Amino acid sequence: MQINYPRLLADLRQLATFGQVGTGVHRLSFTSEDREARHWLLQRMTEAGLDAQIDGIGNVYGQTKGVNKAVLIGSHTDSVPKGGWLDGAMGVLYGLELARARLEAGDLTDLGIDVISFADEEGTYRALAGSLSFCGHLSEADFAATTNQLGKTLHAVLLEAGYAGRPRVTLDPSRHVAYLEGHIEQGPRLEVEGKKIGVVTGIVGIRRLQVTCTGQADHAGTTPMHLRKDAGSALIKYCHDLIRRFEQIRGANSVWNFGQVMFEPGAGNVVPSAARVLIEFRDATEATIDRMQAEIQAAVTTADGQGGVNVQATELIRVSPAEMDANLAALIETAARARGASTLRMPSGAGHDAMVLSRHVSTAMLFIPSIGGRSHDIAEDTDEADICLGIEVLADTVRALNQKA
Amino acid sequence: MQINYPRLLADLRQLATFGQVGTGVHRLSFTSEDREARHWLLQRMTEAGLDAQIDGIGNVYGQTKGVNKAVLIGSHTDSVPKGGWLDGAMGVLYGLELARARLEAGDLTDLGIDVISFADEEGTYRALAGSLSFCGHLSEADFAATTNQLGKTLHAVLLEAGYAGRPRVTLDPSRHVAYLEGHIEQGPRLEVEGKKIGVVTGIVGIRRLQVTCTGQADHAGTTPMHLRKDAGSALIKYCHDLIRRFEQIRGANSVWNFGQVMFEPGAGNVVPSAARVLIEFRDATEATIDRMQAEIQAAVTTADGQGGVNVQATELIRVSPAEMDANLAALIETAARARGASTLRMPSGAGHDAMVLSRHVSTAMLFIPSIGGRSHDIAEDTDEADICLGIEVLADTVRALNQKA
Repeated sequence: MQINYPRLLADLRQLATFGQVGTGVHRLSFTSEDREARHWLLQRMTEAGLDAQIDGIGNVYGQTKGVNKAVLIGSHTDSVPKGGWLDGAMGVLYGLELARARLEAGDLTDLGIDVISFADEEGTYRALAGSLSFCGHLSEADFAATTNQLGKTLHAVLLEAGYAGRPRVTLDPSRHVAYLEGHIEQGPRLEVEGKKIGVVTGIVGIRRLQVTCTGQADHAGTTPMHLRKDAGSALIKYCHDLIRRFEQIRGANSVWNFGQVMFEPGAGNVVPSAARVLIEFRDATEATIDRMQAEIQAAVTTADGQGGVNVQATELIRVSPAEMDANLAALIETAARARGASTLRMPSGAGHDAMVLSRHVSTAMLFIPSIGGRSHDIAEDTDEADICLGIEVLADTVRALNQKA
Repeated sequence: MQINYPRLLADLRQLATFGQVGTGVHRLSFTSEDREARHWLLQRMTEAGLDAQIDGIGNVYGQTKGVNKAVLIGSHTDSVPKGGWLDGAMGVLYGLELARARLEAGDLTDLGIDVISFADEEGTYRALAGSLSFCGHLSEADFAATTNQLGKTLHAVLLEAGYAGRPRVTLDPSRHVAYLEGHIEQGPRLEVEGKKIGVVTGIVGIRRLQVTCTGQADHAGTTPMHLRKDAGSALIKYCHDLIRRFEQIRGANSVWNFGQVMFEPGAGNVVPSAARVLIEFRDATEATIDRMQAEIQAAVTTADGQGGVNVQATELIRVSPAEMDANLAALIETAARARGASTLRMPSGAGHDAMVLSRHVSTAMLFIPSIGGRSHDIAEDTDEADICLGIEVLADTVRALNQKA
């Protein structure tokens, strides 16, 4: 099985022409650019000798013919608005190139390589929609209830795209022995630590809470400090206390973010009547996430009622962490080291289709470095040498699976 | 000189019908409601026997005939959007009732009572415009350069109103021996401390600064905490530090407000690239204000560069404190106590026309309580008994000035 680098890179560059915006892509799910990219991918899979189709939710799936067992390799080809050319796309074309190389090598007794591009990973309609469908978590009723920001339903856009009503491909536990996803890191760690291959240990769980302080609007000139119910200052004190608490109980890879703060009414000369903050926090371990949420609540209890201000927290988002398969991760690590590539065991701080798959099949991810840690931006990029190293490590991982099989 | 309470209260209620909104008024400067109110006031002044006019900026000015010396009494009759019925209006009608009572009493050798309603105190076009014009601080060129929020110039609206081109009335140092302004407190102190008359010692100076933290936007899941340049957390720490500093160096009546906070880009999953806060602070003593501003700058110096975030402060507003005339204030205090009214010496935390006048003529203000401290809202109100007590104290102050003259 011989990887053809120029072919892989040419495919990547060609896929990047669909919805191209400068050095990036704007390829929102089910737009014409996204559908044209799917059609192009379907053709490339067919040319490679796979049994390919676009299914009822837009997943592009290419199956190796004549085998009963296969490794599933893929990711997604939709993008965020003005996103990067590698996010998702690279993982799909890794799968295509490996399937093609396998067929060219003629080792027809090996595990097959099935390739998939999951629809709408980025959530224009619903994050991870394609992998949720593939794993049986999305019904036709969900299609009617899921809308984009303009209120258009997933059902309506699938009708428009001509995908509605087609059969949907699903995970086949008797066939799919593993799911592998290669991806750019989308963060700075590999680059900063000088490592080439990230061995993903798990995908972090995410929670998002809103903490709201409620006081009273008053004239900021005529109301003495001790007579105020100042929601803004209460929020500042709350956040400051919480940062201290998080720093004390955090895990090594815990992250948190105070991404949005709003004061009402928001005038320089009016004491804030209300103040809100969005607090998002992530860790690969549910127990750590629980501990962080307990600190948010403890800080609320401390702050509530102080200075006449009520404080409360509301949970908005809860996603459980996903563990990657430790044996598969070890195969990736061994493969990388055998090629002399430095490795870093790390959680993924962003969500991926592997998160959904990992609940049903042995799953692993490998990361390659993102230049400057940039992603979800047209500036996203990775050295071609790293892209080629990534697929070689993935190829070796597939070879190791064949030896074990 | 006998105050006619029913007449005063009836005038107040009638003035409140111009632009009435429930229990309050919406009488923005130079709107038809505001102009009709000015015209009504002009007629009431004329009926009272004053030599009355509306001048080239909309000031309504009624002069006592046949005297060379007069006390000037007034305030303003424009309102904030959906404001209260007493803010400004009461001080003007105090003047009208006192001038009327003086003429009815027939003490024609007394100091005259000149009455004024200053235009646009609330700053629909320019805060304190009428009193600035009256004291010679506003040129015709300023009229062309001053606009409301929609970009309409003061010049254009004065043309529309028919005021443009008329002579403008001005302070006459040889005539005006003092300026007196009665006003509702617009804050809670008198009510909370159980006092009836506020003897205003000065009007606070105001400064407003914007502090801006500049970091870098990053993915809040994939960027480890130690690699972030988190402008939001930097701002929280900055504000927390500044609150501690202010509490250490504040004067007894110092106030400050963090009225507006903005995080950019403002998404839950993006590390803030920039964060801004508006910091407004007031004190009656310039030295205290300077000390507070020095702490803002010291906190900037401490924070700047920490965690890769740049911090800087920009001054947006600077208004110097105004001192009231101590002798006049003592006359008000003595008059109130002689009537058995409890008094409180206090700075005004809000700006008033008296602020401008005090730079040119002996000036004093008295406050009466605001129910619940409410103002700049249709809920603004004061007990009628307090309104009547206020004008009696002002009448006694005028009597005392006559005895001194």
